[in-house]
Amino acid sequence: MSNKVFELQLTVRDYELDTQGVVNNSVYQNYLEHARHEYLKSIGLNFNELHQNGTDAVVHKIELVYKKPLMGDDRFVVKTYAEQSGNVRFIFYQNIYKLPENELVLEGIVTGVFMKNGRPIRPPQEVIEAIQ
Amino acid sequence: MSNKVFELQLTVRDYELDTQGVVNNSVYQNYLEHARHEYLKSIGLNFNELHQNGTDAVVHKIELVYKKPLMGDDRFVVKTYAEQSGNVRFIFYQNIYKLPENELVLEGIVTGVFMKNGRPIRPPQEVIEAIQ
Amino acid sequence: MSNKVFELQLTVRDYELDTQGVVNNSVYQNYLEHARHEYLKSIGLNFNELHQNGTDAVVHKIELVYKKPLMGDDRFVVKTYAEQSGNVRFIFYQNIYKLPENELVLEGIVTGVFMKNGRPIRPPQEVIEAIQ
Amino acid sequence: MSNKVFELQLTVRDYELDTQGVVNNSVYQNYLEHARHEYLKSIGLNFNELHQNGTDAVVHKIELVYKKPLMGDDRFVVKTYAEQSGNVRFIFYQNIYKLPENELVLEGIVTGVFMKNGRPIRPPQEVIEAIQ
Repeated sequence: MSNKVFELQLTVRDYELDTQGVVNNSVYQNYLEHARHEYLKSIGLNFNELHQNGTDAVVHKIELVYKKPLMGDDRFVVKTYAEQSGNVRFIFYQNIYKLPENELVLEGIVTGVFMKNGRPIRPPQEVIEAIQ
Repeated sequence: MSNKVFELQLTVRDYELDTQGVVNNSVYQNYLEHARHEYLKSIGLNFNELHQNGTDAVVHKIELVYKKPLMGDDRFVVKTYAEQSGNVRFIFYQNIYKLPENELVLEGIVTGVFMKNGRPIRPPQEVIEAIQ
Repeated sequence: MSNKVFELQLTVRDYELDTQGVVNNSVYQNYLEHARHEYLKSIGLNFNELHQNGTDAVVHKIELVYKKPLMGDDRFVVKTYAEQSGNVRFIFYQNIYKLPENELVLEGIVTGVFMKNGRPIRPPQEVIEAIQ
Repeated sequence: MSNKVFELQLTVRDYELDTQGVVNNSVYQNYLEHARHEYLKSIGLNFNELHQNGTDAVVHKIELVYKKPLMGDDRFVVKTYAEQSGNVRFIFYQNIYKLPENELVLEGIVTGVFMKNGRPIRPPQEVIEAIQ
C-alpha cells in the first residue's frame, strides 16, 4: 500500500456555529480529530480499541491556519495525509475544503505520537506501512 | 404530503465520548437538534435562513429517557415525527436506535414554538402542511 | 447533615452561544452535569474516582423546561436539590436563575442511578445521608 | 496602562474529558478563547457588543503545543499576553499552567485580526493602548 490522501466528507451542523454565524474555531479540531480517527480505521487501527489495549494516540502539536469560515449547511471535505517524522513522531497534514468549489477553508498540521505506559513508542506497524 | 417519520443516520465521533467511554448525555441533544433541522430542510425550511429573516424555532421543553448508551464507532438512526399541539406549539417525537439491530437508545419528546419579535407565532405553512 | 440546596454560580462563555446569540439548548445539560458533580464533591463523592473504582452515576431521565434564554456574559446560579426515589433511583431538581435578578431560566428534573458491573445499586452512603 | 499578563483561573469540568480521561484537545481552544474574551473585557472591549456593532475579532492562525494533559478536577490558570504585529494583526501568547504547582500544560500562540465589513481593520484604540 502506498501513502495516499484520505478524504472524509462532512456537513456543518447548526450547533457548531457560534454567535458570528460561522463554525467556531475549536470545532475544526473536532473535524480534524474525527478525520484522523477515520483515517486510522481505514488502515486497520481503531482509536478506542488501541486505548483499551493501553496504547494512546496523542497530539503533541497543532498548527491551524484559518483561510475562510464555514457557515451553516456548508458541505466540506477533510483531506488527510500522514508522514513519519523521526523515530516516534508522525505528522498529519490536514486541509479542509468547502464543497462543491473546493475552496480552501483551513490548513492544519498535527504532530502526534503513540504512547504506552506514559512513554512514546514506535507507531504500530499498520501506521508505518500505510505512510511508507 | 402526509405526515411521516424522518430518518437521519449518523455515526458516533470519538470526541463525543466522555470519560465513561460512552456518548455524553448532552451530546444526544446535539443529535436531536441536528435531526430536527434536517427534518425542517426536508420540508423546505432552513433554520439559518429563518433566523436571518427574524423567525426563530425555539425549544420550550425537552424530555429525554436514556435507554442504552451509544459507544465509540456506533452507528445509529434518529427517527423524527412531528405533530401540532394547540395553536402555536408543535411536538417532535425523536427516538434514537442503534444500528444495525435497531436497539432503542433514547426516547425524546421536544416541544417547540416559532418566535418572531419575541412572540410565539403560528408555525410556517410548510410545517403545518408537513405535519397534517 | 440535613438535605439542602446546593448552589453553583457560573458565567456564560461566548463559545457556548449559538447563531441565535443565546446559549445553545444542549449546553444547559453541561451546566447541570457540572453542578451535579460539584454537588457530589460537596458531600464527599468524586465522579471520576467513583468511575475508576467501577461505580458510575448514570442519568436515566431528564426533563428541561426552557423559560428564558441566557445570553453572552450572563451570570447565573444553578440550584440543585436531591431526593431519593424508591430503592435505587434519586432525583435532582435543578433550576437555573439569571443573576443578579434571579430570573428563572430553566427548570430541570434529572433522574439518576448508580451502576456497578452493569447493574443498578443502592446509592453510596454519602448520598443517602446527604439527602435525608 | 502598560502591557501586562492577564490571568484567568478555571477548573476542568467533567464533560470536557474524553475517553482517555483527559481534557479533549479541542477544549483547550475553548479555554483560550474564553481567556481572550475576558482579556478584552478587562481592557473595556466586549466581544458580543463588538459583533453587534459590526466588528468581529477573528482568529487567523493558532499554534498549540501540548505539554501535559489536564485531568478531571484539575485547576489551572490561563496567562494571556498580547502584542501588535504589523498594522492590523496582533498576537496573543497564551500559556496554560496547572495549579497549584504551575506546571506547564499548553503553549499557545494565536494570531488575530479585527474585521469590519469583510475587511481587516486597525485594532480598536483600547487594544492599541493596552498592548503598548
